[in-house]
Amino acid sequence: MPYRMFMHKQLLSALVGLFHPRDIANAGKFFSSSTAYRRLDISGIYPPIPTPFNEDESIAYDKLEFNMKKWNKIPFKGYVVQGSTGECCFLNMDERIQVVKEVVRLAGPDKLVIAGSGCESTRETIWLSQKVAEVGAKAVMVVNPYYFKTNMNQAAFLAHYTKVADQSPIPIILYNIPSNTGIDIPPEVVIKLAKHPNIIGMKDSGGDIVRIAALVFATASDDFQILSGSAGFLLPAYAVGCVGGICGLANMLGEEVCKLSELSKSSDIKAARELQLRIVGPNACVTRRFGVPGMKASMDWFGYYGGPLRSPLLSLSSSEEEVVKQAFQKSNFL
Amino acid sequence: MPYRMFMHKQLLSALVGLFHPRDIANAGKFFSSSTAYRRLDISGIYPPIPTPFNEDESIAYDKLEFNMKKWNKIPFKGYVVQGSTGECCFLNMDERIQVVKEVVRLAGPDKLVIAGSGCESTRETIWLSQKVAEVGAKAVMVVNPYYFKTNMNQAAFLAHYTKVADQSPIPIILYNIPSNTGIDIPPEVVIKLAKHPNIIGMKDSGGDIVRIAALVFATASDDFQILSGSAGFLLPAYAVGCVGGICGLANMLGEEVCKLSELSKSSDIKAARELQLRIVGPNACVTRRFGVPGMKASMDWFGYYGGPLRSPLLSLSSSEEEVVKQAFQKSNFL
Amino acid sequence: MPYRMFMHKQLLSALVGLFHPRDIANAGKFFSSSTAYRRLDISGIYPPIPTPFNEDESIAYDKLEFNMKKWNKIPFKGYVVQGSTGECCFLNMDERIQVVKEVVRLAGPDKLVIAGSGCESTRETIWLSQKVAEVGAKAVMVVNPYYFKTNMNQAAFLAHYTKVADQSPIPIILYNIPSNTGIDIPPEVVIKLAKHPNIIGMKDSGGDIVRIAALVFATASDDFQILSGSAGFLLPAYAVGCVGGICGLANMLGEEVCKLSELSKSSDIKAARELQLRIVGPNACVTRRFGVPGMKASMDWFGYYGGPLRSPLLSLSSSEEEVVKQAFQKSNFL
Amino acid sequence: MPYRMFMHKQLLSALVGLFHPRDIANAGKFFSSSTAYRRLDISGIYPPIPTPFNEDESIAYDKLEFNMKKWNKIPFKGYVVQGSTGECCFLNMDERIQVVKEVVRLAGPDKLVIAGSGCESTRETIWLSQKVAEVGAKAVMVVNPYYFKTNMNQAAFLAHYTKVADQSPIPIILYNIPSNTGIDIPPEVVIKLAKHPNIIGMKDSGGDIVRIAALVFATASDDFQILSGSAGFLLPAYAVGCVGGICGLANMLGEEVCKLSELSKSSDIKAARELQLRIVGPNACVTRRFGVPGMKASMDWFGYYGGPLRSPLLSLSSSEEEVVKQAFQKSNFL
Repeated sequence: MPYRMFMHKQLLSALVGLFHPRDIANAGKFFSSSTAYRRLDISGIYPPIPTPFNEDESIAYDKLEFNMKKWNKIPFKGYVVQGSTGECCFLNMDERIQVVKEVVRLAGPDKLVIAGSGCESTRETIWLSQKVAEVGAKAVMVVNPYYFKTNMNQAAFLAHYTKVADQSPIPIILYNIPSNTGIDIPPEVVIKLAKHPNIIGMKDSGGDIVRIAALVFATASDDFQILSGSAGFLLPAYAVGCVGGICGLANMLGEEVCKLSELSKSSDIKAARELQLRIVGPNACVTRRFGVPGMKASMDWFGYYGGPLRSPLLSLSSSEEEVVKQAFQKSNFL
Repeated sequence: MPYRMFMHKQLLSALVGLFHPRDIANAGKFFSSSTAYRRLDISGIYPPIPTPFNEDESIAYDKLEFNMKKWNKIPFKGYVVQGSTGECCFLNMDERIQVVKEVVRLAGPDKLVIAGSGCESTRETIWLSQKVAEVGAKAVMVVNPYYFKTNMNQAAFLAHYTKVADQSPIPIILYNIPSNTGIDIPPEVVIKLAKHPNIIGMKDSGGDIVRIAALVFATASDDFQILSGSAGFLLPAYAVGCVGGICGLANMLGEEVCKLSELSKSSDIKAARELQLRIVGPNACVTRRFGVPGMKASMDWFGYYGGPLRSPLLSLSSSEEEVVKQAFQKSNFL
Repeated sequence: MPYRMFMHKQLLSALVGLFHPRDIANAGKFFSSSTAYRRLDISGIYPPIPTPFNEDESIAYDKLEFNMKKWNKIPFKGYVVQGSTGECCFLNMDERIQVVKEVVRLAGPDKLVIAGSGCESTRETIWLSQKVAEVGAKAVMVVNPYYFKTNMNQAAFLAHYTKVADQSPIPIILYNIPSNTGIDIPPEVVIKLAKHPNIIGMKDSGGDIVRIAALVFATASDDFQILSGSAGFLLPAYAVGCVGGICGLANMLGEEVCKLSELSKSSDIKAARELQLRIVGPNACVTRRFGVPGMKASMDWFGYYGGPLRSPLLSLSSSEEEVVKQAFQKSNFL
Repeated sequence: MPYRMFMHKQLLSALVGLFHPRDIANAGKFFSSSTAYRRLDISGIYPPIPTPFNEDESIAYDKLEFNMKKWNKIPFKGYVVQGSTGECCFLNMDERIQVVKEVVRLAGPDKLVIAGSGCESTRETIWLSQKVAEVGAKAVMVVNPYYFKTNMNQAAFLAHYTKVADQSPIPIILYNIPSNTGIDIPPEVVIKLAKHPNIIGMKDSGGDIVRIAALVFATASDDFQILSGSAGFLLPAYAVGCVGGICGLANMLGEEVCKLSELSKSSDIKAARELQLRIVGPNACVTRRFGVPGMKASMDWFGYYGGPLRSPLLSLSSSEEEVVKQAFQKSNFL
């Protein structure tokens, strides 16, 4: 399905020259009246996979394959590669592209591969989006620039994402992660960008459920798909209209996160709540509290390869590791 | 039911002298093994009612009665008086007690009246809790001290709330509202306090749904009742185990908020979501965005008395008022 | 001098009815052209004195007298009573007025007594300003309202302070302490208020030296006097044009803070720097780091009465106390 | 002097193999007892030069030369290249090295060239430090990693900077800029790192003068040199013991910033204050308020080449430009 849609877009673009409009407003008008048009369906659950390293910090491609073989058995919609969890800010450009290429190969044709391509500059973000498209990514997830915080006003956000969306051959998913970037993409910006034909959704890791609900409401007519950025609020996110999640916890508890997704969409509220509540504690340990070090440490306990991190990230201390372990035990996952 | 429970507590206290324990740990042990014991049931929807003022900033008791008569027709569980929305920090002690007394009288015996009694000092909080109990409040909602932010460590929180709970004749509901206090009551503190027999729940206005879920999970064996502090996340709050809400929006859209509450507990997820999404925008205008001025301005549109505010709060400018009006119109409430 | 000026103001007010103007702009114009007018001179060093308590948390007036007798021997310009350090938010109105009255009596005629009178509501702030003036305070220090943070926009600030200044019989000193209030009074507001004839200065405890410098520059033609809110940046504050300081550290190291003040105004930069650097560490312990508990604990070591705090403030733990002691020792004050 | 010292270090390193110690503690001991040892003297004023771009966003090397020729006539100690102002996060590695090389060539032998080499990963930071040393930089300024904020605990900071300092052939200057990174390097970390023989100082752009004073005091025996990160607090910074500044304002007002530096070290406090106060307003416009866009816009007014920015940075709007212009005019610089 995604492919057909994608090709359809390309075709439209070629025929009428309006696929990469220079003007968001016009684009919005054009596409909102075009009933034939539909976007790439990104609903479902994805693990934002970590990049496995050897002891010398080089990329362990064999371990990537090992993990992928296990993940492939889980009913994921696809994979997110080079998100924050992928330690992408520590990889050089060659490595980033190579890892995406490898994940596309290992994922097989049934899984949707989304690649992180956000860089500080617009030009590099465009370049990388094009490169990962070439090696098979089906969409890009684009974190906002964040170094020049005070300059990232609405005009700067709009110009940046419009340029990227205009020139990316594959659709854009906005990536909001204020805990790392120190910036919450302004809702007004998201609402405007949702009208761009090549901006199809957002991953929101902030966890502000009111903000997410407000964006679902405001973009209701735009076929704009919002994904929860964490398993910690997956049920509430579905409750207010999200269509899936990119959940770090799915790296080691993939079946359980997919189960929570199913329950959240069912009418069995009680079962959904119960599983959601069990998930909150361990999830916090592998996301907001201990981050990638917590993630990699706990992957080992579930038969995956976690392994070392690139410096300056440090492996958990043994007391930190104990805290993480207890969280999984308290919820009966270990 | 609540009354019986309450009397039961009083009785226990009188008989065995353990109602106001000096030691939380012991209290927890004692009561967790006491199967006979149950707490005041606070589940349901409450409006945190504003204090109506005349033009000269004196309290307009006639207008209070006018509003109460309308609210009394709505299936609220009760009323919260002297919350933030009540502009309680602008009232002197005599006024605070008098308003509670009046609301108790007007509410009638079927409604549960919860009174705000949090002050900066422990001694004044205890004193006020006793006073509002005398005039008929059935529980107190106690905002944490917040002026000496750096000193409010876990030990200070625990000592403060334990002293208040020990000496309050009516049960305590913790009140967490970081947007006003600049402090999020630490989860560890809440989890410990939930074991105190006279601390029966919490109103959480922060809106961090993961935090709320974590607290529901951690206090599952304590009969600790968490209320959403806003209609903006009422559905997600119910989804993770809250038992009701103290919702500013219920001041003018009481029926709708009660409806949302019912739908949230039903299996009609779609209808619940639809109403929740409609509510988010106007709700933000009368809470986080414009606060009490937004609340009072919009009450007028729904046949209630809003009226002026006490200085330094200012009435909305006409352009601000227009923003609020449009939010209600966009959601078809006006 | 201060007295004469004050009387002069009163006279002016009585004669031309312009002392409490309703219109800031006009007031600014009027007074900027009035060369005869000068303001109460508040330059110099003040300790913001703590309120001594007995073990039962009642006010220990005898201990207040004990401390005052020692402070009176130090070349302070005067005293600040009921600032944050005075735990004023834990005192009721009767206590607040009584303590001011007592300090005025004990201070004698040579010391300028400044009383904190800021409350959440404008009306109560005006009332208290009038009361402390009646018992002998020569100026009031007015912290901004801070509970309804999002509503404290520029219009609210201006209206609040203008009303207070119009109706206070004694001059107003703005009090900016963002660590406790969570709000930085906007510079634009300060610049406008500086033109009000009854707003004569500001205590800035925020420590943002660039902000302070900007305000000195912008109010250069307004005879607006800025006082450092801490001994931790007294030298830098003088360097950019402050005229004195209200310094918690002066409660136990009064001579040393007065010495630093003298050196800062001299051309002996090296000696000033040396003393300033020694003061930073212990000062942090009695202000930002441990607050009033740190203050009271260390007062004992220097022959003053510190004593207990009102709950919820707790006395320092022994390990915290050790940290404070070491800071004083490291700088050779103990 | 610096050169000799630098060579002396290299020699020591070669002879006794202790220049890049693996163990900070030992290093500290060794060097603190070595009276012969002195560090590279970095005292003085530096402009953090911007990278000039052509309209197509390519680097305008001719404009760099144009600017450098003007700057070379000003009594700067040297140049900082690839700081935040250099938009270094938008340059690829080849560009970063090439620009440093060019600045070294244009600066001539009398100016000290400091190059920014901080990257998110330790390994890339080391690599880039080595590269810029090869092309002639005399020291590196290393911003801390900031994407994984919650993981940057003290252990992570210490390990990162120690590895970089151990392997960099030229000395390290720590670079603290919380407005951009969202992190304040913990003082405890700075105090420990100050003992590393290859970490010679810090640029602090945070502007917290108490923090700076505390660090000067705590590192007094370490020959650790702190530079103000802005002209906005240069006088206060000198007052508490800084030895110079890396000041964005020096890009267009180089003579004036050097004058302020001289006055700050003289006993003419009044003249220093006067110039400092004039500088605050325009400085804010080219730093915290409008950042690099403000900088580049105003450079044009003083005969330098400012030019366009790399996207997502946008040129100032005309109304913003007017604000900046007025700030310079108000202080009589235009």
